[in-house]
Amino acid sequence: MTAHEWAKILRVGEGFQLSEVDPRSTPGYSGVKADGKRDLQVGLDELNELQERLFAESRVGVAQDSVLLILQAMDSAGKGGIVRHVVGGVDPQGVALTAFKAPTEEERRHDFLWRIERRLPEPGFIGVFDRSHYEDVLIGRVRSLASAEEIERRYDAINAFEAEVAAAGTRIVKVMLHISPEEQKARLMERLERPDKHWKYNPGDVDERMLWDQYMAAYQTVFERTSTAQAPWHVVPADHKWFARLAVQELLLDALQQIDPQWPAADFDVEAEKKRLAAS
Amino acid sequence: MTAHEWAKILRVGEGFQLSEVDPRSTPGYSGVKADGKRDLQVGLDELNELQERLFAESRVGVAQDSVLLILQAMDSAGKGGIVRHVVGGVDPQGVALTAFKAPTEEERRHDFLWRIERRLPEPGFIGVFDRSHYEDVLIGRVRSLASAEEIERRYDAINAFEAEVAAAGTRIVKVMLHISPEEQKARLMERLERPDKHWKYNPGDVDERMLWDQYMAAYQTVFERTSTAQAPWHVVPADHKWFARLAVQELLLDALQQIDPQWPAADFDVEAEKKRLAAS
Repeated sequence: MTAHEWAKILRVGEGFQLSEVDPRSTPGYSGVKADGKRDLQVGLDELNELQERLFAESRVGVAQDSVLLILQAMDSAGKGGIVRHVVGGVDPQGVALTAFKAPTEEERRHDFLWRIERRLPEPGFIGVFDRSHYEDVLIGRVRSLASAEEIERRYDAINAFEAEVAAAGTRIVKVMLHISPEEQKARLMERLERPDKHWKYNPGDVDERMLWDQYMAAYQTVFERTSTAQAPWHVVPADHKWFARLAVQELLLDALQQIDPQWPAADFDVEAEKKRLAAS
Repeated sequence: MTAHEWAKILRVGEGFQLSEVDPRSTPGYSGVKADGKRDLQVGLDELNELQERLFAESRVGVAQDSVLLILQAMDSAGKGGIVRHVVGGVDPQGVALTAFKAPTEEERRHDFLWRIERRLPEPGFIGVFDRSHYEDVLIGRVRSLASAEEIERRYDAINAFEAEVAAAGTRIVKVMLHISPEEQKARLMERLERPDKHWKYNPGDVDERMLWDQYMAAYQTVFERTSTAQAPWHVVPADHKWFARLAVQELLLDALQQIDPQWPAADFDVEAEKKRLAAS
């Protein structure tokens, strides 16, 4: 299966229903865990070469492309593992990671997209958003942090914003990691059982968990309103961590393959420089 | 050899002379390349656990410590390889990397430390500076980008600044990667010979290379003026990439071992949360 086929299978298209996606499934992939881990390692080499070409093109100014991976999920769905095991395989010099928390007082004084715009990747970079502006239409809606009219306005504002970002040369890859409430319970319980994981546990996680159905409904609306041609959503079943990591790597590979960056030609006289260097 | 012993051996102390350091040497280490690569892998697990503990402490607010690794070197000495192979082994969620380029117009309108201060690591993070404020007393001096009086002022300003940063809880690890001009020539020649490396070559690199002795003199003065108790310099022989990577990993390990971060205790009732989660 090519990276492009992965992307097509996982993409949220017309008529998509989140409730029909099984978080334990591995769509399009017939391998088991050991295969998935091996394929993740295999993909890393290509990911690294494509990333370096992308970076190289931007350094010498021949292209302005970048990639933006947006990760959204319920707590413990594995965003951190994606950052660690997929993004972490890439040269840190070409990655710009932002973990968005609850907005600060200063951020709340601005439009919800203000803090997002400031963290867009520069040309040549793979930007990664751990949470994003989608929080403002997810927890924002479920917890009624904004009025229904304001939430409505935000979907359109997001689409306009992302269309601009895409037109400026950023390939946007939006991913929802989809876990089951049963799997979440097991993962949160593990955090409670291991003293070295206590710091990752927050009693508020259980409060959010009680609102599972409301969150799923909010995600469904997000998909219907903001899965666009220039910035489509992908739903990645995430009960199997190995599958989710492989799938997100494939989505990154697809984005980079579409850009198809090339090693830039030298903008200096190579033979003359060899002589000058030899004489130095 | 413990990480602390590595740090002591590589530290710039009283009477240090850069000219006496052999860039091909592997001070204190009797292993060869294969040993160095293995030891780098072995050290990674400890580095990751210490980094995660540091991060955990900051998340729950029990400590404000951070680490700042400052990398300086002549072109092609291997800063990028350190970032890729040492820093790249650490969870990206706990790393904040900044590559400082020639200052922008906006940056030049401020004091030279302005842009540096804005990129200091937050509590819990390992900050990495690929080049730094030391450029302002290295190329700044060699290329006479500032007056001799201004360069003099900067050494004191740097010491005052770093003392403040250290007092606020940041352990500063300053590293000069020391290569020989012969090794640099070989590395630059390789960039010229490989089309996939052309983008890394800059004709200006040869111009800087012609000023080698002036740069070494500028480094010597930097060491004499700014290797302080709270922010010592370390000179890492770097003709052997494997040695430089292992040495910098050990310096990071030493900094983290000195902080000695611990898994934070839960600030909630673990048994009560288990019941609440089980019932959810």
